[in-house]
Amino acid sequence: MTDNAVELGPLPTCWRRRHLLGLEGLTAEEITAILDKAEIFKGALVSGKRRVPLLTGVTSCNLFFENSTRTRTSFSLAARRLGADTIDFSAATSSLSKGETVIDTAKNIEAMGADVMVVRHRTPGTPHLLAQNLNCCVINAGDGPHEHPTQGLLDILTIRQRRGSLSGLTVALVGDIAHSRTARSNIWGLKALGANVIVCGPSTLVSPRWAELGVEYTYSLDEILPRVDVLNLLRIQFERQATRPFPSVREYAHLYAMDRGRLARAKSDILILAPGPINRGVEVTPDVADGPHSAILEQVTNGVAVRMAVLWLVASVSPN
Amino acid sequence: MTDNAVELGPLPTCWRRRHLLGLEGLTAEEITAILDKAEIFKGALVSGKRRVPLLTGVTSCNLFFENSTRTRTSFSLAARRLGADTIDFSAATSSLSKGETVIDTAKNIEAMGADVMVVRHRTPGTPHLLAQNLNCCVINAGDGPHEHPTQGLLDILTIRQRRGSLSGLTVALVGDIAHSRTARSNIWGLKALGANVIVCGPSTLVSPRWAELGVEYTYSLDEILPRVDVLNLLRIQFERQATRPFPSVREYAHLYAMDRGRLARAKSDILILAPGPINRGVEVTPDVADGPHSAILEQVTNGVAVRMAVLWLVASVSPN
Amino acid sequence: MTDNAVELGPLPTCWRRRHLLGLEGLTAEEITAILDKAEIFKGALVSGKRRVPLLTGVTSCNLFFENSTRTRTSFSLAARRLGADTIDFSAATSSLSKGETVIDTAKNIEAMGADVMVVRHRTPGTPHLLAQNLNCCVINAGDGPHEHPTQGLLDILTIRQRRGSLSGLTVALVGDIAHSRTARSNIWGLKALGANVIVCGPSTLVSPRWAELGVEYTYSLDEILPRVDVLNLLRIQFERQATRPFPSVREYAHLYAMDRGRLARAKSDILILAPGPINRGVEVTPDVADGPHSAILEQVTNGVAVRMAVLWLVASVSPN
Repeated sequence: MTDNAVELGPLPTCWRRRHLLGLEGLTAEEITAILDKAEIFKGALVSGKRRVPLLTGVTSCNLFFENSTRTRTSFSLAARRLGADTIDFSAATSSLSKGETVIDTAKNIEAMGADVMVVRHRTPGTPHLLAQNLNCCVINAGDGPHEHPTQGLLDILTIRQRRGSLSGLTVALVGDIAHSRTARSNIWGLKALGANVIVCGPSTLVSPRWAELGVEYTYSLDEILPRVDVLNLLRIQFERQATRPFPSVREYAHLYAMDRGRLARAKSDILILAPGPINRGVEVTPDVADGPHSAILEQVTNGVAVRMAVLWLVASVSPN
Repeated sequence: MTDNAVELGPLPTCWRRRHLLGLEGLTAEEITAILDKAEIFKGALVSGKRRVPLLTGVTSCNLFFENSTRTRTSFSLAARRLGADTIDFSAATSSLSKGETVIDTAKNIEAMGADVMVVRHRTPGTPHLLAQNLNCCVINAGDGPHEHPTQGLLDILTIRQRRGSLSGLTVALVGDIAHSRTARSNIWGLKALGANVIVCGPSTLVSPRWAELGVEYTYSLDEILPRVDVLNLLRIQFERQATRPFPSVREYAHLYAMDRGRLARAKSDILILAPGPINRGVEVTPDVADGPHSAILEQVTNGVAVRMAVLWLVASVSPN
Repeated sequence: MTDNAVELGPLPTCWRRRHLLGLEGLTAEEITAILDKAEIFKGALVSGKRRVPLLTGVTSCNLFFENSTRTRTSFSLAARRLGADTIDFSAATSSLSKGETVIDTAKNIEAMGADVMVVRHRTPGTPHLLAQNLNCCVINAGDGPHEHPTQGLLDILTIRQRRGSLSGLTVALVGDIAHSRTARSNIWGLKALGANVIVCGPSTLVSPRWAELGVEYTYSLDEILPRVDVLNLLRIQFERQATRPFPSVREYAHLYAMDRGRLARAKSDILILAPGPINRGVEVTPDVADGPHSAILEQVTNGVAVRMAVLWLVASVSPN
């Protein structure tokens, strides 16, 4: 229906994965391959080429055991823009309440004809379990607090597009590190591409053990602020916290919110990211969220492009 | 895939709106432009041309903060029949429960690539707020008790198709006027096209202040019945009423239900409309609902055609 | 987009039904016609022809008053693989909570342009009621404990593909016969094709009155096991049972679970079916479910093929 003459080029020789389970273990070359293809897809989207039917006949299933309208929609749009068919299989209404195992549920969907399974589950390792037990491709869309690789990739793509390169940049992940799969995926991806990573937040949410991942940690945003190139303001996930890990939201905002005052003390070209949905006034004040340093909405657009790239890459590797 | 040689003609010169937020303020010419295009689309649908791919590559998002399977499905079908992609983003499962603002949610969806946002929200003015803050087109699919313009348009199209013209007709809106966005949209549209409007219902649901909108009001259906050309029987929205505004459903039906007896005292060619879902035996008795004076199911078919017209019109106006 | 040169052949002369409400009353010829077409569709699916656009322009609606992600997804995929448009209309979010009748809901969807209505409802006979009151095609996707014809057909197709023919085979339906629409549909279909049917389960779930349907009944799986060709292990539908009809799950499994021991005492080529979702360790042990006698996942694949066949057949009969 539309022009599909997108100059995508061939499958990169470095790419042999039929699954994307995390950014841990990916080489710089592999991550760069994803980002390069994502940029081509983004160029097509932005120039109005909404349909790039490279995956016609392919069926992608969103197998979400946790709700996430946003991520699910982004994957669905990515799949459909590639011409793929999409299925949504959500836990709330599925047979899981009937006592079926996760593997059986997934094998059933595969038997219906799914080629790619995009999986979100609160248990770390669920996508890995499915990758071992299914023939179809598996993409991790968030496994508990473990990884959320496409979120990491879209953050990194946004930085690369604004800065040209990741190498040597200092990126601080601020906030709810303990509950954040986004943090882990960012760390692996950023380090692979040569960035320095700092995790920063209240001591109840940042443990010294993060140093084992090769990152710096701190409880003080103000201390590190002058040398940070990129701030990634993670959501305070109130809905995941049984007890609140700090005295009050106001206290948290006082110490960690990115506001006009902190912006004045930061590098003049500081880049501010935040995986949505944002709590305005908590992690970031409205003027900063909507200001020129913020790339929050670019992240969302890049999310669709990154997911198109990942879907295309994994679906293009033949099973053996 | 199918013949798309629908003789739609060019974008009417009078049409310059990228949003349809209400029928208030639309000129007769603009309303007529929508109805004319809707009739062409209806002709295509009825003759079996289910696909008129004029909006290929366009993405329409149903952003519904209130449930409405019916309206949502009608908009989805309209969009898909135009070849557009559709996204459903419902409040129940969305990030709104995570504290995000309505504008941020909508901007995120826009950043994913939505071109048209079809919005339902219980707060009057929400679509207007989004139209001011987004670049994409906004269509109001119901904002609290304020407006529901496509419902008004489909009612008016149904009258025009049965009667040829609206001019000089007397149209009575009966029932739950106070809670009805349909009433307001009908009033603006009907008056623009030259119809006389009467609002009629229990005094708890009809206020003298409706006269300020240039309509007649009455508490007695029987009094006005002999001179009415069209009756639009609004739903008693039990689910929106904290306290019941009349002693009993039986009492309401006794005074306002359109039944065989009232039909006998009405004009011989009276036309009966009712925006679904109908409460059989409350606003209308089954024999009348299913009889020749009723156009209830035509309204539903016209709903898809009207929404195709509105989608095509707003999406065809370039953003400056 | 893809090669649609599937050698489907013409509409069989025996097929004149615009509805599939049950397998009761279908002739062997009609059932065979469905199975033959389903095999052709399965061949296309398996060989990678995911799109067979024979129903372009047709709209199929899943009208599900009970949740069933699995069956709904199978029907959706079947419809989309035929090029049809799909609508999901589920009870939880629909206008039914607003007091509308089932017929009015269905007529509304039909007025929006649905050509096929795939109906699930807990009340037996609901699809029949709709077939009498609508112009569109109706397919029963489960009406309470009554029938679930496409489940019966996919079971029978699976047996036919493994054994070549149904004639003379002894098929035992084991387990929760009382609550099983699958049992009833299997019985009608299997008997029409010349198989002998035994229903087997606890006396609380198997009544002597089943003999009236022309089947044998027994409370002992071990007694019949040596002469059974096919075992269809029905789910214990814990979610449908107010009180548990046997002392404990362990007791049930002891008497009825298909395990290694029973497999050793069965015919060497016994075929084991189970409509998912399975309760591992209850109706069947994992080693048997995943072993060579099991055709559980073939059933799922056949489900899509059977539904493509049924959709194509009913939609291809002109409404007089």
